[in-house]
Amino acid sequence: MSIAILAHELFPDAAKTGIGVLRYGDYDVEAVLDRENAGGRVSEFVPDVQDAPIVAGMDDVGEVDALLIGISPIGGAFEESWREDVRTALERGCDVISGLHYFLEDDEEFAALAAENDCELWDVRKPHDDLSVSQGIANEVDAEVILTVGTDCSVGKMTVSMELARTAREAGHDAIVIPTGQTGIMIEGWGNPIDRVVSDFTAGAVEEMILEKGDEHDYLFVEGQGSIVHPAYSGVTCGILHGAMPDSLVLCHKAGKERINAYESVPVPPMETCVDLYEGLAEPVHPARVYAGALNTYGMDDEEARAAVEAFEAELGAPATDPVRFDAAEILEAVL
Amino acid sequence: MSIAILAHELFPDAAKTGIGVLRYGDYDVEAVLDRENAGGRVSEFVPDVQDAPIVAGMDDVGEVDALLIGISPIGGAFEESWREDVRTALERGCDVISGLHYFLEDDEEFAALAAENDCELWDVRKPHDDLSVSQGIANEVDAEVILTVGTDCSVGKMTVSMELARTAREAGHDAIVIPTGQTGIMIEGWGNPIDRVVSDFTAGAVEEMILEKGDEHDYLFVEGQGSIVHPAYSGVTCGILHGAMPDSLVLCHKAGKERINAYESVPVPPMETCVDLYEGLAEPVHPARVYAGALNTYGMDDEEARAAVEAFEAELGAPATDPVRFDAAEILEAVL
Repeated sequence: MSIAILAHELFPDAAKTGIGVLRYGDYDVEAVLDRENAGGRVSEFVPDVQDAPIVAGMDDVGEVDALLIGISPIGGAFEESWREDVRTALERGCDVISGLHYFLEDDEEFAALAAENDCELWDVRKPHDDLSVSQGIANEVDAEVILTVGTDCSVGKMTVSMELARTAREAGHDAIVIPTGQTGIMIEGWGNPIDRVVSDFTAGAVEEMILEKGDEHDYLFVEGQGSIVHPAYSGVTCGILHGAMPDSLVLCHKAGKERINAYESVPVPPMETCVDLYEGLAEPVHPARVYAGALNTYGMDDEEARAAVEAFEAELGAPATDPVRFDAAEILEAVL
Repeated sequence: MSIAILAHELFPDAAKTGIGVLRYGDYDVEAVLDRENAGGRVSEFVPDVQDAPIVAGMDDVGEVDALLIGISPIGGAFEESWREDVRTALERGCDVISGLHYFLEDDEEFAALAAENDCELWDVRKPHDDLSVSQGIANEVDAEVILTVGTDCSVGKMTVSMELARTAREAGHDAIVIPTGQTGIMIEGWGNPIDRVVSDFTAGAVEEMILEKGDEHDYLFVEGQGSIVHPAYSGVTCGILHGAMPDSLVLCHKAGKERINAYESVPVPPMETCVDLYEGLAEPVHPARVYAGALNTYGMDDEEARAAVEAFEAELGAPATDPVRFDAAEILEAVL
């Protein structure tokens, strides 16, 4: 499937979704839309992902199957400055894939254009209607379940899940990712957007996916969300932990992070405390241990990164690495 | 406000909502509808709540302002055998109050009848549209916040919150309940149904209520939900803990309970473990201690109850009592 990725004015640093899709998605990316960087190429900004030209708008894109919204402003609103590109895409018969809180199918103009041109509007963040409460039986599937947990949001849980599954597959294992957020869902092409389901169904929405895929694969890498110490999102984190009933946990952290993003009064606890909280919470429902750590060393040079990993490993008391910069094998060895 | 309570075939044991409203609500209950016990009186079944006649249907009820659905079958569906009573109520100009997952306002017949007869359909479990993520600032209000937490669902957290607030008011304090579930909302006449909000807004929906009421009162008793060790509902519990940012916790337990309701493979952990989990989770966001326990001794005689409370107190390492059977003063002394 060929796509264009909309990332106006936010590429690359604030285009987490777009970068995730470029790095892990099974799409041919024909172009990235960013009116600020038009004329450049993806590889100038992010060297280690699929390359593509950067263009100013949909009019400069050749034939593609879909336009994918690759950025998500705070609050998940739709920016009116994107309307022309979405309109052009639909008029040309392209599907539009969006992870915004604002649902494109509820937009009258887009809904009409999609119907008229026989295109699909895929609002990735809209949960399906048949979700329910967890039955507490995810542990019954015939697969090893590995959950990424974090010290905060945006430390790399989705990325780590993707790297681990990819490395496991390269080593000959039958491994998949269980996607729980918009980027993961776009990359994998399916999944439940856990942060948008009814709160009573948080665990159930994860369990449903485990039950659906568990007996078909040997290793399920569940994409974690938020953090158990996050003032706003801990409920989602806790629901995923108990719904997935993982066998092992990988603690994800960002080097140098000392406080929760946007909640500066809340410090990130010592790693030992984080481990105790996750293991303690898992224990009564389905015991799981933190067998490895993943450190996001983005922005450091290799030497700094190596030192940061060593320090993290010592604090954690478990093997750790940066699976994007270095290699995921060390983590895999600990959890498989 | 005068009401009738619908509780067909489930009064009193499975009519948790109806009993809660009879016990704590500021309503004049004119009748309870239960076709199985018609002809009897509430006091024959539940001696310590507001008394009312039990009748077979809405046709046997005198003038009332509203019909309140006082039962909630598993799944929260609407039973078609109740339709005649709801129809009659609306035709007579009564409002209808419901905490079902099935929203009465989405029922075409009821919506039309309500419009025609100028009545209100109050779907207590429908969250309002302006909820958002927590800002992590509930601790900034000028009030003491006390949260009830539990070892399981249905152990009495709502009841304990009501008893504590009532006893505090009787002692001259300015105390209110922050309602988080359908029965609490019906009793108090306001509140957010936390188990039905978007999972990302779990903490935010609690925080919103604390911010709204915090500076107007001295003590806020927040109604807890679920349990941190519940396979399906722990996410809601965790979100309330971090959203409310309580100063103290009251651990609620049911005497003799050893396993999670409907999840028999999950044992209730030792009380010490429960305390550690709640306090450990609270700590990084806003520290809170379990200063007291509340034991539900329903079904025991007084001597058994006293022995059970003593054993619970010893296991908990904190003052405890059954505030419904005995008195809430002991708990209040520990938390205020």
